[in-house]
Amino acid sequence: MLKEWVRDRRPDDETLSSRLETARAELGRRQILVKEHKLPVLVIMDGWGAAGKGSVLGRVIKNMDPRFFKCETLSEPSRDELRRPFLYRYFIRIPKEGQFSFFDGSWMDEVTSDLLHGDITKKEYKEHLTSIKRFERQLNDNGYLVVKLFFQIDEKTQKKRLDDLASDPVTSWRVSDSDRWQNKHYGKCLDVFDEYIEATNQFVAPWYFIDSSSKKWAELQMTEILISSIDTALKNKEASRRAPILQNTFPLKKMPKLSEIPLDKVMTDEEYSSELDRLQDRLKELHNEIYHKKIPVIVAYEGWDAAGKGGNIKRIAAALDPRGYEVHPIASPEPAEKARHYLWRFWTRLPKDGHIAIFDRTWYGRVMVERLEGFCSENDWQRAYNEINEFEKELVDWGAVVIKFWVQIDKDTQLERFTDRQNTPEKQWKITDEDWRNREKWDLYEEAVDEMIQKTSTTYAPWYVLESNDKKYARIKALKTMIKAIEKKIDKLGE
Amino acid sequence: MLKEWVRDRRPDDETLSSRLETARAELGRRQILVKEHKLPVLVIMDGWGAAGKGSVLGRVIKNMDPRFFKCETLSEPSRDELRRPFLYRYFIRIPKEGQFSFFDGSWMDEVTSDLLHGDITKKEYKEHLTSIKRFERQLNDNGYLVVKLFFQIDEKTQKKRLDDLASDPVTSWRVSDSDRWQNKHYGKCLDVFDEYIEATNQFVAPWYFIDSSSKKWAELQMTEILISSIDTALKNKEASRRAPILQNTFPLKKMPKLSEIPLDKVMTDEEYSSELDRLQDRLKELHNEIYHKKIPVIVAYEGWDAAGKGGNIKRIAAALDPRGYEVHPIASPEPAEKARHYLWRFWTRLPKDGHIAIFDRTWYGRVMVERLEGFCSENDWQRAYNEINEFEKELVDWGAVVIKFWVQIDKDTQLERFTDRQNTPEKQWKITDEDWRNREKWDLYEEAVDEMIQKTSTTYAPWYVLESNDKKYARIKALKTMIKAIEKKIDKLGE
Repeated sequence: MLKEWVRDRRPDDETLSSRLETARAELGRRQILVKEHKLPVLVIMDGWGAAGKGSVLGRVIKNMDPRFFKCETLSEPSRDELRRPFLYRYFIRIPKEGQFSFFDGSWMDEVTSDLLHGDITKKEYKEHLTSIKRFERQLNDNGYLVVKLFFQIDEKTQKKRLDDLASDPVTSWRVSDSDRWQNKHYGKCLDVFDEYIEATNQFVAPWYFIDSSSKKWAELQMTEILISSIDTALKNKEASRRAPILQNTFPLKKMPKLSEIPLDKVMTDEEYSSELDRLQDRLKELHNEIYHKKIPVIVAYEGWDAAGKGGNIKRIAAALDPRGYEVHPIASPEPAEKARHYLWRFWTRLPKDGHIAIFDRTWYGRVMVERLEGFCSENDWQRAYNEINEFEKELVDWGAVVIKFWVQIDKDTQLERFTDRQNTPEKQWKITDEDWRNREKWDLYEEAVDEMIQKTSTTYAPWYVLESNDKKYARIKALKTMIKAIEKKIDKLGE
Repeated sequence: MLKEWVRDRRPDDETLSSRLETARAELGRRQILVKEHKLPVLVIMDGWGAAGKGSVLGRVIKNMDPRFFKCETLSEPSRDELRRPFLYRYFIRIPKEGQFSFFDGSWMDEVTSDLLHGDITKKEYKEHLTSIKRFERQLNDNGYLVVKLFFQIDEKTQKKRLDDLASDPVTSWRVSDSDRWQNKHYGKCLDVFDEYIEATNQFVAPWYFIDSSSKKWAELQMTEILISSIDTALKNKEASRRAPILQNTFPLKKMPKLSEIPLDKVMTDEEYSSELDRLQDRLKELHNEIYHKKIPVIVAYEGWDAAGKGGNIKRIAAALDPRGYEVHPIASPEPAEKARHYLWRFWTRLPKDGHIAIFDRTWYGRVMVERLEGFCSENDWQRAYNEINEFEKELVDWGAVVIKFWVQIDKDTQLERFTDRQNTPEKQWKITDEDWRNREKWDLYEEAVDEMIQKTSTTYAPWYVLESNDKKYARIKALKTMIKAIEKKIDKLGE
């Protein structure tokens, strides 16, 4: 694509100036519309070293209100970022609704440069491409406008610019080794850029090339692309567009319905305490091992109110070194969280490699409480099964062990526990009117949970049901499940 | 993707049989839903020679009502098909709403085999990939379910099957040279298939792999994939999903608004008749030339009622050899046309190479009459600008000259001509109540036409406005424009 690209002819100076004047004013109007319509706009700027991305961006934002945008320079990942999934550093920086984010450099930069320098294999590179396509599509499906710009200059122009910059002591620091390397291997880089652009040129997030031979001309192209892209995105937004529900392509495990799961499992106190000791010791050992092997572990807890999630988590946590794990209680989202992709608040809470993150309630709120209480649209939660499968695939591909527990009790047991909480002064804080209201919707919730378990029990991140009418039994099963999953991962790494 | 694919384990015989029984019954129910919800379903079946596509298809349709499906075997294109755009033979075979079409072999087969045998260049191959992605996405956006299946067997299995077939005189005819070739070059073919699948694995039309090592198991996989795909498509349909309006990525020509176009151009009778003779002679020569050079020419006429389209077309046609052109008057669509993608009736009317097709009214009806009379949804016509740009790109890439005329008059001139028609007995058939009703909507139409011209004047297929207050002037301009466009194409070919 890039190789065959025929650039528009640069207009004469007079036309250029007059079009630029119009375009600047138009962009000014668009930023107000973006704010009003709560459109999040992510502009990624990739291209050759010395193509002038920085100065063009400088010109473009001069006509914008600084409260409406953020600029991010994404060069090398930090040490902390390197310990997270590949997309982490980008996902945590997505704009909130009504805001622009300009990324100077992006995931394209990162993966093409890694490939060119042999830092990743062709296979890893391809996996990244899949991740990137999902990421960009998810942003689009969740109402983001993603504008992808590639700033193009030819080999000679690049060489001349680098030489000019280098010869002036004021600017010589701006010429990096990697710029020089690029220019020396221009043809090879062009091949890789071209292939990358072709592979990621999705209909929902197409590439635009910018002839970067002159700054003013590049500014005009960028501004006009922004304007028309915003107009299209607003048209989609006004029509309260529904994104398509995608066909499932992930391998699924056949799972029983909640009503088919016997809840008569019990455990004696003696058996419980000896098992508990033994398993906690084993988990402690494993925690040490995953730390050294840099394996991230993510444990997701969902279940009925009063099913015993809290006590269950406590027994897991008790076995762990406090420096190596974190428990994230998930309540309703903060304003900054609500204004972004619903998975954003989970991306920001991902553990570093070698660490454990335990989520007390999770991203599955989307297809349970948000679905049933109407906090998101039907299209949103129907899309979410696939989006969540993609999210967890990302985590597993990163190397994480993902364990999902559904803590199951029957309706009578819940009533007993609610009543007990109400009648026991030191437990009264644990029971609220909302718990009673949720209980009234038991059947609706059960239907939603059944659908969720059917559609998100992937072979790589299946659900485990913890039969918790007897909390002791559930705790032991949770420990055993977690131990088994971690051991399996360690075995696989050892192969 | 194909290379790294880990197949599901084949269930034991008992499980397989019971799952198959359930799945067959479920598919039976789905075909009724498909009919009721008017869902068109296109199933394409690709894969290795001797993978058993035919017999699996035979098993699957045994459980379906034959009124609800069609099977198409798409092997080599016919000589007539080779003279049309690459996608022609597939587009004309798309199912109508409520129907299944099963394609045994598809565009994948065609392009990968052409690439493997060096019949197309890598560049042509890539262009085809772009066309294919657009085609599949357009089908999806227009309410089609596209299910893409790849039947996978390994090298050894293929060899054994081919040997077995060949050794039996009853079946030996089924082993083609190309099957043998494939088996001999299994690794090379696998590379190409893998790349193809990766490049075309769009979210709106993903690939499914079918482990084709046993027929019963392959039938189960195919049936289960059909069921879940239909369920997803029906969910999208029920939600009367809107497909996204895509950002424009085609190069556009800046065009004036209709109101900015002066209509004072006139021509004397003498000038007209001498020019007419000269230009018709030249067009006649060119018609001969395009016939020999196999250049297809497509002329699209749109314009106000009584603007003089008919007379204009007559002057073009008069210069042409009747064996080499066809005029297609476009009225409202027939039921079989209405039940398919709105561009279907234009695909079926495309000329052979070396021929000229003149359309008296066109696919632009979508963004004019269908838009204004509510014959399609707002989302439909808003999407259509891009869909039409894609369609015309297809024609131009095929090698066609695409010329689009807007025949322009002012409102007073229309009134004069209407009145004249009404008062002249032999012209009365030319004026209907509908013409008067359309005239009342002049302003709305003008707005729609302005938007259409802005958004579909691509550099490769721009609009030409024919100022037709003086019909003579408009006819001469049409001839000149057509001659210039054809000459330009011939020059380019000569380079």
